[in-house]
Amino acid sequence: MNQVTYSLIGNYMNSCMEDSAHDNSHIYRVLYNALRIAKKEEDVDYDVLICACLLHDIGRKEQFANPEVCHAIVGSEKAYTFLIDNGFKVQYADQVRHCIKAHRYRKNSPPETIEAKILYDADKLDVAGAMGIARTLIYKGIVSEPLYSLLPDGSVSNGENDEKPSFFQEYKYKLENIYSNFYTAEAEVIAKERQAAAVAFYNSLFEEVKDSYENGKEELGRILE
Amino acid sequence: MNQVTYSLIGNYMNSCMEDSAHDNSHIYRVLYNALRIAKKEEDVDYDVLICACLLHDIGRKEQFANPEVCHAIVGSEKAYTFLIDNGFKVQYADQVRHCIKAHRYRKNSPPETIEAKILYDADKLDVAGAMGIARTLIYKGIVSEPLYSLLPDGSVSNGENDEKPSFFQEYKYKLENIYSNFYTAEAEVIAKERQAAAVAFYNSLFEEVKDSYENGKEELGRILE
Repeated sequence: MNQVTYSLIGNYMNSCMEDSAHDNSHIYRVLYNALRIAKKEEDVDYDVLICACLLHDIGRKEQFANPEVCHAIVGSEKAYTFLIDNGFKVQYADQVRHCIKAHRYRKNSPPETIEAKILYDADKLDVAGAMGIARTLIYKGIVSEPLYSLLPDGSVSNGENDEKPSFFQEYKYKLENIYSNFYTAEAEVIAKERQAAAVAFYNSLFEEVKDSYENGKEELGRILE
Repeated sequence: MNQVTYSLIGNYMNSCMEDSAHDNSHIYRVLYNALRIAKKEEDVDYDVLICACLLHDIGRKEQFANPEVCHAIVGSEKAYTFLIDNGFKVQYADQVRHCIKAHRYRKNSPPETIEAKILYDADKLDVAGAMGIARTLIYKGIVSEPLYSLLPDGSVSNGENDEKPSFFQEYKYKLENIYSNFYTAEAEVIAKERQAAAVAFYNSLFEEVKDSYENGKEELGRILE
């Protein structure tokens, strides 16, 4: 890929982006993750991979406006149209489209090419480690969801078995379980490097609030007549 | 304080609250922090302390609507009016008003009473440790500020000397420096217990993005023609 093409695609991506959990810094982290993974793989088409990384979330705005829309499907079609309109070959546009469509796992559209597998893993890596914690918390702020829920007895739930959305719930349902089932070996290596930071943060936050509520409620019970 | 009074004040607080970084879970953490601190102090008026904790952020909505308004000043007057209107004594309402007014440090209104000092410290403790990290990230989501800024050379800034707001900037300007200058000894003990979790999270997040950008940009430079 040359610099002119890279800028053309990057500018189109920027024209499509909104909302701070998926601002363009996420896009570049995914691109950089993908390039690190790609070094350990063979026969990677970097033109396809770089373009797919840059454009993988361009359907976010449409999904944000209508949650029934899947950003991977909308984004893949937008990318295809953009590439055809700008004179790229059909085969190239088609490969990019597959990567983007398959980056959000659905049983009926798993990633099939090496570029699609790398994008899938690189995107998933941005939910690992401290970054996964940070992005999830930012998103909780955007959608006004709380850090934790209280159990019927007034104690702090650790998130397991919670029905109401919260940071702890998302940690237990999603973040805790993303450190395996990658398509590439290198992605799993990177994820494992970052896992301890996420675990430590969750444990610290839970201990802080659990202790605070336990001691505080006991003390309050003693004081209130 | 009896249960009826506690519920009356709590219901008024809930009627005033908005926005998820200062939802009522913050209020209860501050109350519970305050009760832990109070155990180590003498001559604490728990009626004043509990009421002041519950009502300390009731001016948040007014500040959110107009950032020139100070929520501590507005909230202190709202609390005073609420207490007088509900038949509490002037002296009591006045003590609560002082605590709330002084909980956000301004040179011209430092906390003077032990209850005001405990509220100040208990509120500050909720910016310490993993909780301080979590609340700051949630707030960044609400106000659409990024995690980090890039330096002119494209590398990730650690937040020091940043002019643009970001999570790393706020960590360096504020969160990193809140572990001393408490009014009470117990608050400093609790803060120090929680400090390592915050430091570890910041360091992990910075390492993740710094490494990602350094490797990624180098690789990209090699690939792009």
